[in-house]
Amino acid sequence: MTAPIARAHTNNRMSQLVRHGDLLFLAGQVADSYEADVSTQTREVLAHITTLLAEGGSGRDRLLSAVIHLKDIGDFAKMNAEWEAWMPAGAAPARTTVQATLAHPDLKVEITVIAAVG
Amino acid sequence: MTAPIARAHTNNRMSQLVRHGDLLFLAGQVADSYEADVSTQTREVLAHITTLLAEGGSGRDRLLSAVIHLKDIGDFAKMNAEWEAWMPAGAAPARTTVQATLAHPDLKVEITVIAAVG
Amino acid sequence: MTAPIARAHTNNRMSQLVRHGDLLFLAGQVADSYEADVSTQTREVLAHITTLLAEGGSGRDRLLSAVIHLKDIGDFAKMNAEWEAWMPAGAAPARTTVQATLAHPDLKVEITVIAAVG
Repeated sequence: MTAPIARAHTNNRMSQLVRHGDLLFLAGQVADSYEADVSTQTREVLAHITTLLAEGGSGRDRLLSAVIHLKDIGDFAKMNAEWEAWMPAGAAPARTTVQATLAHPDLKVEITVIAAVG
Repeated sequence: MTAPIARAHTNNRMSQLVRHGDLLFLAGQVADSYEADVSTQTREVLAHITTLLAEGGSGRDRLLSAVIHLKDIGDFAKMNAEWEAWMPAGAAPARTTVQATLAHPDLKVEITVIAAVG
Repeated sequence: MTAPIARAHTNNRMSQLVRHGDLLFLAGQVADSYEADVSTQTREVLAHITTLLAEGGSGRDRLLSAVIHLKDIGDFAKMNAEWEAWMPAGAAPARTTVQATLAHPDLKVEITVIAAVG
């Protein structure tokens, strides 16, 4: 009776994408360019999210929640500029942004979202 | 077939409230009184949550999860006193509380909840 | 029309387990052995999660998301070794890991999961 779970990009540690019913959970996304500044890293993170949402049958206009971890909360405005450029009008999710040291010292931003399929 | 998404208090960055099916996601809530102590800030945060839950068709007795970020984990007891005074008996959600630097240096507490409509 | 909420291990502050429809939210789990190292603490945390998932009608092969807070991100590899030993092949959830000071100074890891019933 319960919905099946579909996963993608799964290794021993995590799946980048987990779908259950019409909910889609993405792993915390980080940049590929560790040396890049927060603006570039944010654009890379959002590009990853765009790709994974499409793969999971959702889209950036179907986000429900986002949690943003910034290595340095002083990067808040730069991150927001990229975020707002990426976000479709009227579709912004519930959001929480805090400072946190991430898994690698060069990572400046990590974004974790839940989205609705459809 | 998938449920529609209803949002409220939406700007280019976030929505304070996102409803999908019978799930309600609130943005991380912070205080209005930046200069106030953690007890006052927690009461203000909880008042915001009360208002948004009602607007979304839920209530404080329908919380599923809460994530609490405290600027100073030394404020844990003071925050908890306000939280427990606000929480109806038998209705407490799954909860996680950690220390984190928030988006503005005067903010002492931010609370992010998921609730069930109904 | 909305699903009922079932809670377990509920006090004035939180429930260790909250079920709504086929979603199961666990409180952030911490170790019992405050003096133990991160490996032992992670094993204790995962044992708690195993028990609570079973009680809620789910299991470690039904995790949707996990958020891991480490007191010291330098413990990332040790935590991961325990995590990967515990995780069934092909079942890993969406995951986010960041450093954060936890509610007690001796706590080295806290894990918060959402799972699917069934």
